[in-house]
Amino acid sequence: MDKLFEKLKNYSESGIYPCHMPGHKRNGMGAMPERLARLDITEIEGFDNLHQPEEYLRELQQYAAMAYGAGESYYLVGGSTCGILSAVSAAIPRGGRLLIARNCHKSIYHAAYLRQLRLSYLYPERLSQVDICEAVTAGQVREELERRRDIQGVLIVSPTYEGRIAEVEEIAGIVHEFGIPLIVDEAHGAHLGFHSAFARGSSQAGADLVVTSVHKTLPAMTQTALLHVNGSLVDRRLLQRFLRIYQSSSPSYVLMASIDNALRLAREDGQQLFQRMFDSWKRMLEKLAACRVLTIWPPASLPLTEYQRHQDIGKLVISTQGTEMNGQQLYRVLLEKYGLQMEMACDSYVLAMFTIGDKASGYERLTDALLELDGRMSQAVCGSDESEGRGVPVREETGGKEPEESKVEPQGETSGMRAEESRESIPLSECWDQPVEWVALRDAVGRFAGEFVNIYPPGTPVLVPGEKIQEGDRRLIGQYLADGLKVQGISMRDAQPTLAVLARV
Amino acid sequence: MDKLFEKLKNYSESGIYPCHMPGHKRNGMGAMPERLARLDITEIEGFDNLHQPEEYLRELQQYAAMAYGAGESYYLVGGSTCGILSAVSAAIPRGGRLLIARNCHKSIYHAAYLRQLRLSYLYPERLSQVDICEAVTAGQVREELERRRDIQGVLIVSPTYEGRIAEVEEIAGIVHEFGIPLIVDEAHGAHLGFHSAFARGSSQAGADLVVTSVHKTLPAMTQTALLHVNGSLVDRRLLQRFLRIYQSSSPSYVLMASIDNALRLAREDGQQLFQRMFDSWKRMLEKLAACRVLTIWPPASLPLTEYQRHQDIGKLVISTQGTEMNGQQLYRVLLEKYGLQMEMACDSYVLAMFTIGDKASGYERLTDALLELDGRMSQAVCGSDESEGRGVPVREETGGKEPEESKVEPQGETSGMRAEESRESIPLSECWDQPVEWVALRDAVGRFAGEFVNIYPPGTPVLVPGEKIQEGDRRLIGQYLADGLKVQGISMRDAQPTLAVLARV
Repeated sequence: MDKLFEKLKNYSESGIYPCHMPGHKRNGMGAMPERLARLDITEIEGFDNLHQPEEYLRELQQYAAMAYGAGESYYLVGGSTCGILSAVSAAIPRGGRLLIARNCHKSIYHAAYLRQLRLSYLYPERLSQVDICEAVTAGQVREELERRRDIQGVLIVSPTYEGRIAEVEEIAGIVHEFGIPLIVDEAHGAHLGFHSAFARGSSQAGADLVVTSVHKTLPAMTQTALLHVNGSLVDRRLLQRFLRIYQSSSPSYVLMASIDNALRLAREDGQQLFQRMFDSWKRMLEKLAACRVLTIWPPASLPLTEYQRHQDIGKLVISTQGTEMNGQQLYRVLLEKYGLQMEMACDSYVLAMFTIGDKASGYERLTDALLELDGRMSQAVCGSDESEGRGVPVREETGGKEPEESKVEPQGETSGMRAEESRESIPLSECWDQPVEWVALRDAVGRFAGEFVNIYPPGTPVLVPGEKIQEGDRRLIGQYLADGLKVQGISMRDAQPTLAVLARV
Repeated sequence: MDKLFEKLKNYSESGIYPCHMPGHKRNGMGAMPERLARLDITEIEGFDNLHQPEEYLRELQQYAAMAYGAGESYYLVGGSTCGILSAVSAAIPRGGRLLIARNCHKSIYHAAYLRQLRLSYLYPERLSQVDICEAVTAGQVREELERRRDIQGVLIVSPTYEGRIAEVEEIAGIVHEFGIPLIVDEAHGAHLGFHSAFARGSSQAGADLVVTSVHKTLPAMTQTALLHVNGSLVDRRLLQRFLRIYQSSSPSYVLMASIDNALRLAREDGQQLFQRMFDSWKRMLEKLAACRVLTIWPPASLPLTEYQRHQDIGKLVISTQGTEMNGQQLYRVLLEKYGLQMEMACDSYVLAMFTIGDKASGYERLTDALLELDGRMSQAVCGSDESEGRGVPVREETGGKEPEESKVEPQGETSGMRAEESRESIPLSECWDQPVEWVALRDAVGRFAGEFVNIYPPGTPVLVPGEKIQEGDRRLIGQYLADGLKVQGISMRDAQPTLAVLARV
């Protein structure tokens, strides 16, 4: 089976003239590189059709299924987003009830809206060492399934954005006891199962549907993903229907080729590539163990068994808790002084990502930067040495003064998660089409949210339409804005942060 | 405003290290070209966010709106598919009624299903010279709007896949008399308005929502499109919501860069590029006027005013009606003997596409091939000279005998359109979730379709779920299969073409 990139390249040299789209006719025009245009075709002879694969693309998808130990796999050119929409739509009947972690990606809420689903929530614990969400536990899933007997499917996130892995096998067992399907949003786990030091992928752990972004942790192009289906709880005809609905009818072969390329690398050279990555990773953690002020997660001391069960490799959380900086400030200094672009910053940490695409210099640059910063931050705390010139930035809103104690958020109110579970709310599918009005954030407490308020990245909702807004939400959103985070769903009107609430009837 | 391709290239040379996704870290790995990987980033500093554009991407979208004379424009990385889903979802309330041409793209039916819409149909006439669908007329739209007062929006296709242009301005006027929005599926019209010899784009003609594939007729990458919104009949907040729902939350910057590149070319160099295309096109048509057996549409004699109002440039229909070949056979011989890959073949014609990406050699190769074939076909009809060696292929199913008269389909039963308008049917949104059973095509007459049956390309439905299957459908689908067309929704079971019908209750 030819590699798709090579098949495309060979085709471009075949001399066959394109009396068809795309309009560039395989010529680089303007600023588009010729090498890129040559690879970009549409469904023509010999290249099959993603929406009814019968030849070559079927073989590629079979290879993907084999690589992940899945029943069937589907190439996705609309990212994990279209995989989630398709998986939820196919697994739960219209109007049904789905159990999800409250901090899951917004696409899951979107699927619930489109299909008029009722949502029940699991509230993940937080990891005590650094303030990140844990994966949901088997105990939580069982408790909720026993409490609400009308739940028709469960969706969990594993690994989480910050790299915590759920006990998928145990959860799958419990969910199947209730005769319903388990969907795993494995967007951040395309590499799982390809090395003995990693956890198994969710297909091998017994999940019914698994959505995996190939571009996030493997070397594929942005917007590429896979959907795996296992067992017989989910109707595959329905699944294929929804893939046809939610995916472009003109799928990009360049994106598909990059999926093929990434999977072959992972499968054929993975042992060596991931071993090298694991070695670089461990070496970095060992050096970072010298940090005295910044908290690094995972720690160098984390045993291998934790990587095999609970902790992903590649996601480095650098917590600023207890320091004079917040996450956004650390993010800025890493970018502006050290030329290191982080994956994400939130109020109390930044997140860096490593993959098999990294070079030794990347690990070294981040390690050196963090050690240098940590050293300076220690000095600042112990006696202050800001006159030195290239000092550590200070919170803008406190004008250079010592950080206020109140800036440290209590656990359970950060990162879009609320500790309390008994919030009054109207179902999303009933309220998201209702008229809204725009009110200032300070006046919104006690009203019902009319739009999502999301933190991006990763795109998890702080507020879901229909949820009654509480004082804690107001404070949390205000803090995010003050910290310079990207908060979707908040507009500035008359110099006031403003959001949509359901109009009073 | 920098070109996005150049901005991406410059960024890759900035020395900033990516501690973020995508996993290739801008390195070409395996068979992925380095030049491609370098351009592929995610939402990082300076590159804005497509789902809440505030800086650079907002400027690019404003440029697109300016280029098309639209109120606002949105970049789409999920093709026209996600534009159609978003436009229909935002324009028509859940459960509402939408008027569409029966031969529109399947994505419109999908939107209707997701939003539980009721559909009313317009049945386009057929162009007499070659058996292709006409665009719907203003008269048809007015008649149906007067007949059914509960219609809440109208969707038309212009240009059609084969290049017929609707009287959009007149239709917009009528639709607005009824106080409802007009959506135009302009997937094949990204080039309209960029040259004085072409019709205006639908935004300038008064449509409320316009969905345009950039990759089809301009030099952009496959899967790129634009959605334009005009006027105030459509709630833009709702439109943006649905774009966030249906599009990937990890949109590809490479795809976006190719949109930017195509629009700049069309806007800045369009006059010259399209003039050269128009000249090559006219020269080809003039030479092809010598065809004696094949029918070429449009004819060389078509006046400029027709191009400005009713006929698109770039879509060449080569009809085999009245010859010994069918469209599929002409398609094969053009590919296998002349190395010319057509856009599409159906029973009575092939479709070739030309754009500003074509070179003079492309026009010449197709012209020479058609003239040579036409000469041979004449000979074959007048006296037969098949012993000459490289003869014209004959229908496989007739074993080399003269084609049967009955193979020529009556007009109105080809290309997925049915002449009759009074077919019994169950609304799509009510029936597509019902149980189905699989029956042989020959036993399906009188049953209600359980799945779409589509011809691809272009992806228009022959049968919509809920439609009562008639003898004409059976014959038509049988003919498509015999002709070797790609028919989605038909499976071979026990060597019989089989399709899903609603189970009897």
